[in-house]
Amino acid sequence: MSNVLVVGSVALDSVETPFGRADEVLGGSGTYFAASASHFAPVQMVGVVGSDYPVERLTPLAERHVDLAGLERADGESFRWRGRYRHDLNAAETLETRLGVFSHFHPKIPTQFRNAPFVFLANIDPRLQLDVLQQVEKPKLVACDTMNFWIESRRNEFLELLGFVDVLLLNDAEARQLSEQANLVKAARWIRERGPSFVVIKKGEHGAYMFGPHAVFFAPAYPLEDVFDPTGAGDSFAGGFIGYLARTGHTDEQAMRRGVIYGSTMGSFAVERFSIERLLDIERVDIARRLEEFRKLVAFEEDLPE
Amino acid sequence: MSNVLVVGSVALDSVETPFGRADEVLGGSGTYFAASASHFAPVQMVGVVGSDYPVERLTPLAERHVDLAGLERADGESFRWRGRYRHDLNAAETLETRLGVFSHFHPKIPTQFRNAPFVFLANIDPRLQLDVLQQVEKPKLVACDTMNFWIESRRNEFLELLGFVDVLLLNDAEARQLSEQANLVKAARWIRERGPSFVVIKKGEHGAYMFGPHAVFFAPAYPLEDVFDPTGAGDSFAGGFIGYLARTGHTDEQAMRRGVIYGSTMGSFAVERFSIERLLDIERVDIARRLEEFRKLVAFEEDLPE
Repeated sequence: MSNVLVVGSVALDSVETPFGRADEVLGGSGTYFAASASHFAPVQMVGVVGSDYPVERLTPLAERHVDLAGLERADGESFRWRGRYRHDLNAAETLETRLGVFSHFHPKIPTQFRNAPFVFLANIDPRLQLDVLQQVEKPKLVACDTMNFWIESRRNEFLELLGFVDVLLLNDAEARQLSEQANLVKAARWIRERGPSFVVIKKGEHGAYMFGPHAVFFAPAYPLEDVFDPTGAGDSFAGGFIGYLARTGHTDEQAMRRGVIYGSTMGSFAVERFSIERLLDIERVDIARRLEEFRKLVAFEEDLPE
Repeated sequence: MSNVLVVGSVALDSVETPFGRADEVLGGSGTYFAASASHFAPVQMVGVVGSDYPVERLTPLAERHVDLAGLERADGESFRWRGRYRHDLNAAETLETRLGVFSHFHPKIPTQFRNAPFVFLANIDPRLQLDVLQQVEKPKLVACDTMNFWIESRRNEFLELLGFVDVLLLNDAEARQLSEQANLVKAARWIRERGPSFVVIKKGEHGAYMFGPHAVFFAPAYPLEDVFDPTGAGDSFAGGFIGYLARTGHTDEQAMRRGVIYGSTMGSFAVERFSIERLLDIERVDIARRLEEFRKLVAFEEDLPE
């Protein structure tokens, strides 16, 4: 089993959905990723919180093999995000973003984290993502996420970063924005030509495509009756995906396919409750059961009539 | 092998897409369905055309076991649809609809068609769909399509029809409109409680869900690099689906799952060219090859790490 290093945000979220609201709950890409990936492999987390962060609420993560030695405590306010989902649960409406100490974040990778074989660069400034890669020692696999803001404002740095990335995860709108291709097959090819062997295009409730060197793979989203809060679904997906790869140590096509299914599985749990509540609640048997549901969801026997 | 009876529109379409335009080409739900289903089973088509319809252009259909004995020729103009797709190929913009003789259409099912075991009621007035069911003799399976217009303007008649339908095919917006449920799992349950054992919810480029008595099944859309003209994709899907069932005579869950995959396969061919061009062009080997691509697209080996 290999370690997974994640560098991302650790935030306090306040979220309103058609089903309820939560105030100042654990959030951030690093937090969701770690909660998800820790079901599969030991996680080493790097991030920053302010002096007001309720770090004791991270204890459940520490108890599940998330090493918080890279979590810096800085003077000032923690990163806070306030958002709302209306009936289209695919689209978050950001009401307020207060970066706080996150705006001066300079990831420092602790010495004992630098040889992590699996690295996930969550959605932060591409310059910081590049900086992280200079601090680590030849990881077996580097995966990375991003967002529209960086694609627009740090395009050159992001393109430079792509050259060092094995797996890029992004949503369909971001793939189109980055490649300037409306068609996702063409968008994925454009991106793959710039570095990543695998491009995972997430489509929210419409599932995810993985484009690789030899084939395309598709995983549907689990048809949930109640999507409670979509926040963190993408980072939980990444956590299941990269966490699974780290557990097995494999990065071949079959492992990547299974990784995407584990990613979809973890994403489907994350949205069942606020924050990382559900991710902390589930056990191995729940994951196995939902994986079996995913298998059944797409299973058909071939039988071309003569 | 069983016959499939289809009652639907036979039209002349003029379509503009980002990739080109076609004028007065063969269109209509009955036409697309027949062109698709005829790869699997003999089709009996019921519809109406005006005195101006170039019926000789239907010869390729007749040559592929589409029985046109139920195609009425009425005095007046044929049904014409003119539409445009911009970059979002999921949304057709209707520029003009001239119903012509279709506005007085009263389906008359020829005697020799009345014992067809498989019946597809394409998107027409639910009162006419009910009328067709009174003319046929206990089919083994009745499938039906509809559209937002009928759900709104003929809601009661449509709900009455549902009591006689085994498989309802509709798109996600229509499912939400009909059930007044935003969540598709709930929408499908609402619909199934009103009659259909199976509800197929089509999501265009995002694939299709089938909700049945025992399970949910999902088929992705084939990731095409060039979607040339989306017109008729849904009816081609229905043709592959119901045509496959008619070929095998089975209506169990496994057959229905394979049916949905054949439907997705035929839908993916339909959009590769204008009108029914591609559907007339493909052969058994093309269908088999794409079916195999669909299998690979979702295939993963299970391997829950210990």
